[in-house]
Amino acid sequence: MTHTPVAIIGAGPAGLTLSHLLHQHGVESVIFESRSRQDVEETVRAGVLEQGVINMMRQTGVSERMDAHADIDDAIDISINGSRTRIDLKELTGHQMAVWAQHEYLTDFIAKRLADGGTIFFETQVDDADGYDGDKVVIDYTTADGRHEQMTADYVVAADGSKSPYRGPILEQDGAVRSRHEYPYAWFGILVNGPQTQKELIYATHEEGFALISTRSKDVQRYYLQCDPNDTVDQWSDERIWEQLHKRVDGEGLTVQEGEIFDKSVLKFRSAVTDPMQRGRLFLAGDAAHTVPPTGAKGLNLAVADVSVLAPGLVRAIKRGDNDLLDNYSAIAVPRIWRAQHFSYWMSSMLHSVPEQGYFQHRRRLAELEAMISSEAGRRYQAEQYVGIDLPKFEV
Amino acid sequence: MTHTPVAIIGAGPAGLTLSHLLHQHGVESVIFESRSRQDVEETVRAGVLEQGVINMMRQTGVSERMDAHADIDDAIDISINGSRTRIDLKELTGHQMAVWAQHEYLTDFIAKRLADGGTIFFETQVDDADGYDGDKVVIDYTTADGRHEQMTADYVVAADGSKSPYRGPILEQDGAVRSRHEYPYAWFGILVNGPQTQKELIYATHEEGFALISTRSKDVQRYYLQCDPNDTVDQWSDERIWEQLHKRVDGEGLTVQEGEIFDKSVLKFRSAVTDPMQRGRLFLAGDAAHTVPPTGAKGLNLAVADVSVLAPGLVRAIKRGDNDLLDNYSAIAVPRIWRAQHFSYWMSSMLHSVPEQGYFQHRRRLAELEAMISSEAGRRYQAEQYVGIDLPKFEV
Ligand SMILES: Cc1cc2nc3c(=O)[nH]c(=O)nc-3n(C[C@H](O)[C@H](O)[C@H](O)COP(=O)(O)OP(=O)(O)OC[C@H]3O[C@@H](n4cnc5c(N)ncnc54)[C@H](O)[C@@H]3O)c2cc1C
Ligand SMILES: Cc1cc2nc3c(=O)[nH]c(=O)nc-3n(C[C@H](O)[C@H](O)[C@H](O)COP(=O)(O)OP(=O)(O)OC[C@H]3O[C@@H](n4cnc5c(N)ncnc54)[C@H](O)[C@@H]3O)c2cc1C
Repeated sequence: MTHTPVAIIGAGPAGLTLSHLLHQHGVESVIFESRSRQDVEETVRAGVLEQGVINMMRQTGVSERMDAHADIDDAIDISINGSRTRIDLKELTGHQMAVWAQHEYLTDFIAKRLADGGTIFFETQVDDADGYDGDKVVIDYTTADGRHEQMTADYVVAADGSKSPYRGPILEQDGAVRSRHEYPYAWFGILVNGPQTQKELIYATHEEGFALISTRSKDVQRYYLQCDPNDTVDQWSDERIWEQLHKRVDGEGLTVQEGEIFDKSVLKFRSAVTDPMQRGRLFLAGDAAHTVPPTGAKGLNLAVADVSVLAPGLVRAIKRGDNDLLDNYSAIAVPRIWRAQHFSYWMSSMLHSVPEQGYFQHRRRLAELEAMISSEAGRRYQAEQYVGIDLPKFEV
Repeated sequence: MTHTPVAIIGAGPAGLTLSHLLHQHGVESVIFESRSRQDVEETVRAGVLEQGVINMMRQTGVSERMDAHADIDDAIDISINGSRTRIDLKELTGHQMAVWAQHEYLTDFIAKRLADGGTIFFETQVDDADGYDGDKVVIDYTTADGRHEQMTADYVVAADGSKSPYRGPILEQDGAVRSRHEYPYAWFGILVNGPQTQKELIYATHEEGFALISTRSKDVQRYYLQCDPNDTVDQWSDERIWEQLHKRVDGEGLTVQEGEIFDKSVLKFRSAVTDPMQRGRLFLAGDAAHTVPPTGAKGLNLAVADVSVLAPGLVRAIKRGDNDLLDNYSAIAVPRIWRAQHFSYWMSSMLHSVPEQGYFQHRRRLAELEAMISSEAGRRYQAEQYVGIDLPKFEV
């Protein structure tokens, strides 16, 4: 039976980044990914990179296309009923933000892993991982051509996204906690062939609800509108979408640029945390362990933060038999996850309109936005959390 | 029938400060106060003055005793499960805070008003104020010796505290709003004869609930414990109080100093805003218009902020017949009130433990506190709101 030091389930940001970082320190791994390479490289999801992630890409040789093509922004706008305030991230924090689509990130990490001789099995589904409580893990998987095979591993990392079944055994441990929060709203997202409304992101709040203006390129735009969590795509005609975008965003000489809508989807809002994120030789990373609502743009970034602890932990354990960092993986990763949960919740609560919460909360929320944007300290406090704290750094 | 330009109901911070500021600009007024002078001068309530209030006291000659005796602090402490972080207000904002009891404030303003020849009718209850929709107000009142009398006034200001009946006619106007919020906790307050635990305030959060350590003097201490809104004084034995104070506050070498408890009370948590705060010749000021929970220490300060708009508004109207500022009293005062509501709500939510809100909110709240205290910008954003924005300034 084949053996690998680290079996990784999932070629998302968590799995690919982990495999890449392990390789940087001479530890090999195998990635199992149920979808095709093309599918992974084409699915549009997250789009904002923290400075720490950019630095990691640069330091480990995966930043070439990002440096050449990503939209580097100095600022975001916060719009309140059409009146915009610039949050100058660069001036406030010294950091910029990169708008770089998740599928571009994945495309580069896949190319890099393959160029470095790494192993990624696409269209290969992991059916089971067992033995993590003992001293060897056995992976059962189904290959692209339908064969059932097995592989052994010293460690298995479930980087298999928000529906991961591997939370199950972890949550059976004494004191383990799964924490969840549901939000009373969702985002209706569209992709548009058409001109940019504005290069820098606009987070707009309005009595009728939140809207987000972002751009994928000069010709492709990504807009979001706050909607009901139970809304379906057919409830939102093109006409209704443009009417709502104009209402919520237009103002002070800025008009949302219309175009041809070629994709509509509803994005659910959820928070979830799993603690701990490990059991024996089994580890969770990324969305497998936690979910954040999209407002804070922390999903991909948190996945990378997790594996920035997990990778050196695994390297130390495998190369030196030193388990200290690995044993403390959850203890180190979880506080950052809660900081990201707080930030995402805060941004979400401050920007979304929830009439059912009543008049007091409505006025209080607007007063909070006013307090924040009218104070240099308030803007900086928000900007610091938006651009993110540095990634954890550990010697291996 | 006697006539006064401005009839003021209530000799609390709002009424006394208003009368004093009017006098500074040569406009006389009469204050009606149902309680005795002694009662007003002895009732212990608020205790923290914003820098703007201190400045106003200095500029208008009422600061002598405060300057000589108030506790001027540079900082507050935030304690999380016994571990304290200093919020250095002075370094962060350039401002200090004065701990100066409300009854001392009132004592000085009463003395100053009387020295300046002002009129305060103590033990005199206003029974009715009418005619405010026309061009003269008629005040019906009962004197200390039980006589029913009347006085006319150009304007009447209801500075009669949170139970003011004068909100009634104001809320009958088209578009008028009363906004309310109830909190799932209250404060159990004690006054103690005993040594100081610490000179500077400690805002302590703990799994068992919030606690506040403050001091009135070297020998008298004021402590608060988060309790259930339905708790009664007899549910809190001295033993239980000390046990809970030690549990919530002790740590890092600091121990709550015990003493003889000579007062116990339950302080309700409520937010309320009335908008507008005026109708014809009738105006609300202070608690008559709005209530804030005590966490932000904004009650007295907001009352002073209200009358810092209302006083010049009345002076312009009375001396020059210019009603612009007076007509805009609510429009100018209300945004600050919402800022104070937000701040008080934020501080309250961040510091109180509410198990019924669930695990997610509990962890998120602690992550928010961590985010705030670990960032210079976060601490400054909080400190700025704590020390308060400057009082509104208008030429008369
Ligand atoms: C529409 C959308 C918009 C978003 N916007 C943002 C944003 O703006 N900013 C941001 O930071 N985050 C955003 N996110 C979140 C972000 O995309 C996720 O946090 C991120 O993808 C998590 O990475 P991951 O590697 O943990 O999981 P995933 O990216 O979900 O990767 C898991 C992978 O595992 C594979 N897999 C699952 N089960 C198996 C199995 N049994 N065998 C083999 N393979 C398996 C899946 O096919 C998948 O490719 C968004 C998400 C969505 C859906
Ligand atoms: C226990 C306690 C602790 C507090 N702690 C703080 C704190 O730390 N910081 C802070 O800033 N705020 C605090 N507050 C709030 C603060 O005390 C109030 O916001 C402040 O007193 C409001 O001032 P006011 O002048 O509007 O009303 P009040 O102080 O309530 O004055 C109203 C006056 O009107 C009189 N009156 C009422 N009706 C009539 C009538 N019909 N005729 C004649 N007279 C009448 C009353 O007797 C009273 O003296 C606290 C309040 C309490 C109760």
